[in-house]
Amino acid sequence: MNIVDIITKKKNNEELSYEELDFAFNGYLDKDVADYQMSALLMAITINGLSLDETINLTDIFIKSGDVYSFKKKVADKHSTGGIGDTTTLVAMPIVAACGVAVAKMSGRGLGFTGGTIDKLEAIPGFEVEMDKDDFYEQIKEIGIAICSQSDKIVPLDKAIYSLRDVTGTTESLALIASSIISKKIACGASYIVIDIKVGNGALIKTQEEAEILSDWMVKIGKHFKRQIETIITPMDEPLADSIGNALEIIEAIEVLDGKKGKLYEVSIEIAAHILAMAKNISMKDAIILAQNAIKRGAAKKMFVRWIKAQRGILSALHVSDKVVYIRSKEEGTVEEISAINCGRLAMKLGAGRVKKNDEIDYSVGVKILKQIGDYVKERDILAELYVADYNFKLDEEDLNLFVIK
Amino acid sequence: MNIVDIITKKKNNEELSYEELDFAFNGYLDKDVADYQMSALLMAITINGLSLDETINLTDIFIKSGDVYSFKKKVADKHSTGGIGDTTTLVAMPIVAACGVAVAKMSGRGLGFTGGTIDKLEAIPGFEVEMDKDDFYEQIKEIGIAICSQSDKIVPLDKAIYSLRDVTGTTESLALIASSIISKKIACGASYIVIDIKVGNGALIKTQEEAEILSDWMVKIGKHFKRQIETIITPMDEPLADSIGNALEIIEAIEVLDGKKGKLYEVSIEIAAHILAMAKNISMKDAIILAQNAIKRGAAKKMFVRWIKAQRGILSALHVSDKVVYIRSKEEGTVEEISAINCGRLAMKLGAGRVKKNDEIDYSVGVKILKQIGDYVKERDILAELYVADYNFKLDEEDLNLFVIK
Repeated sequence: MNIVDIITKKKNNEELSYEELDFAFNGYLDKDVADYQMSALLMAITINGLSLDETINLTDIFIKSGDVYSFKKKVADKHSTGGIGDTTTLVAMPIVAACGVAVAKMSGRGLGFTGGTIDKLEAIPGFEVEMDKDDFYEQIKEIGIAICSQSDKIVPLDKAIYSLRDVTGTTESLALIASSIISKKIACGASYIVIDIKVGNGALIKTQEEAEILSDWMVKIGKHFKRQIETIITPMDEPLADSIGNALEIIEAIEVLDGKKGKLYEVSIEIAAHILAMAKNISMKDAIILAQNAIKRGAAKKMFVRWIKAQRGILSALHVSDKVVYIRSKEEGTVEEISAINCGRLAMKLGAGRVKKNDEIDYSVGVKILKQIGDYVKERDILAELYVADYNFKLDEEDLNLFVIK
Repeated sequence: MNIVDIITKKKNNEELSYEELDFAFNGYLDKDVADYQMSALLMAITINGLSLDETINLTDIFIKSGDVYSFKKKVADKHSTGGIGDTTTLVAMPIVAACGVAVAKMSGRGLGFTGGTIDKLEAIPGFEVEMDKDDFYEQIKEIGIAICSQSDKIVPLDKAIYSLRDVTGTTESLALIASSIISKKIACGASYIVIDIKVGNGALIKTQEEAEILSDWMVKIGKHFKRQIETIITPMDEPLADSIGNALEIIEAIEVLDGKKGKLYEVSIEIAAHILAMAKNISMKDAIILAQNAIKRGAAKKMFVRWIKAQRGILSALHVSDKVVYIRSKEEGTVEEISAINCGRLAMKLGAGRVKKNDEIDYSVGVKILKQIGDYVKERDILAELYVADYNFKLDEEDLNLFVIK
């Protein structure tokens, strides 16, 4: 077998066998295949695509490249393809655990607009994101939920391939996205998996059509590996929560767990209900009631507090900047749009996100949206609060362009 | 400008501007663009193609990456996309020079089945393939012909890109083939250029249709740069000459210059006539007569001898192995096919070609075909002679599978 022949085959839009995919991808991990050869193959895959069979095979190769966790009791996991103000994990997963379905989740740090789940959790002083396998297993057995940072030993191939895709214009391949996400969920041991596919101009997935194909494939890949996968497709036009920024998002998650209604509540209930419906083999209608009740009766919040404490987080020490700048409306009218992408950019500029991998995050800063789409506002009304590190922080006029009012 | 955006644009099949191509390709030469990024771009180009405008721009960028030669009197050059037993340069170019049109040619070494023109010339003891610019100019002025090895200073970008294409499955792009070939011919100063496009299963260009597109583009690129380019499209099914092997091919070229008729004679006359028609602004019919007469009256052979001597080659010292093995027919019938690719493979196995870049070539070995397509042969008739380095040389049954007799 020869890597140039394999690349050429995919260039000619022919199907690759399991052995050929294995030769190429594990060859890359073993450094027998050069990075410039892998990037040529990734480009051929991105343009010509992979069949469902090829994608299943690639997912299998990804899974087998590292450790594979398994649990005696079936556990649940979720994934979002990335959104601004997407704090659903911090709400939905305590609901799930409070309803008796164990949650075993590994998360990543964020690159770009805001922090990932792990960054948000690190905003809680003392919270330990690193867990070894034994502690992870033990905590799930003990309290029913653990969320730690992605182990390097889980799907190391994905990590290697992802950093190459990032710099070679090959991130937008549905097959590569599907195998990357699903392999990690399966290697992590999940039996019930919900994937939240974000669609929109600022998202990895641009169109509803692509989202539906990705959804269909993910479910089929799950079936092949005997895991239950359900997907929800949500637009990424406006921020999912009112808060964008790490500590701010933790606070909003707690508010929702305390009963605050809104978009974050709705989507979190939906995600939790999908998992509960699968795990308990009940209807979505019954699962939604179950999830809502977990909040109503305080069980979800109690689970959240117990979980944070188990990982040594001190919620009372959570810190948000006390320096606040207001964005006021320049006109009277109705809020027609809130730009998720501009909110994300602004939060990043304030220090809530990373431009480069090793940038430091300021957990205490961020953006808090005070008006919703449809709200009527007068001139000079406060639209949003900016929590800043320093009042002298330089912002341009266009940085503040979050709302469309007509 | 950002390389990932440029790669993504071509991935999405959008047109790249001159500035974007320049940023990517010269960035690669300057090591600002990584090889894994260039290979992803090359794959996107190979699959999605370049427009004619993009190809002209890329050719210009290639040309400007190194030295550009120019001559007071217009000079001629030729190129073949690669064939087995293609010794046309050694016949056609002395004809052209003998008819008063100067020839300035740089050639390469071969990789694969047999040697390139430079390897063949090196089979002549003493022949100097390296020439500096002054000597090259001087010899062309003096005797009207010089053929030396490709200078590293001519289109260095092509050299860098070609070695990457070779290992990333991106050799078969018409746009990249056209810009690679034409940029070198133009940088070398040629005004009259004939390109022999080989078509066939074993060739870089697989179909007649592709060959015609490539031909059309090359002519148009030539026009843009104010050079006259003509192409001929020839099948690469059977070997172009009877001899495959370096010293053997020199001997056959001399035989043809002495008047021996056959395929090599025909194609060489055609190539020479195309150049003469362009340079002298005469009809192809008249140009063919001119070329044929150059052989008939001994002028082409005289020019050949003068040229080899000018580059210090000693023709009388040319050495062919005295160890000969015969391939005999196993049956009675008519020769229906002679496989060019199998002749090439056998010659390489005997030591006439290179597998890797730095392999040594044995100039004295090779294959000599004694029967032509259409010839009637009896059992045990000699079909070909193998000139071998050693009688103990191990050949498999399938190595000898050169002829189809029915």
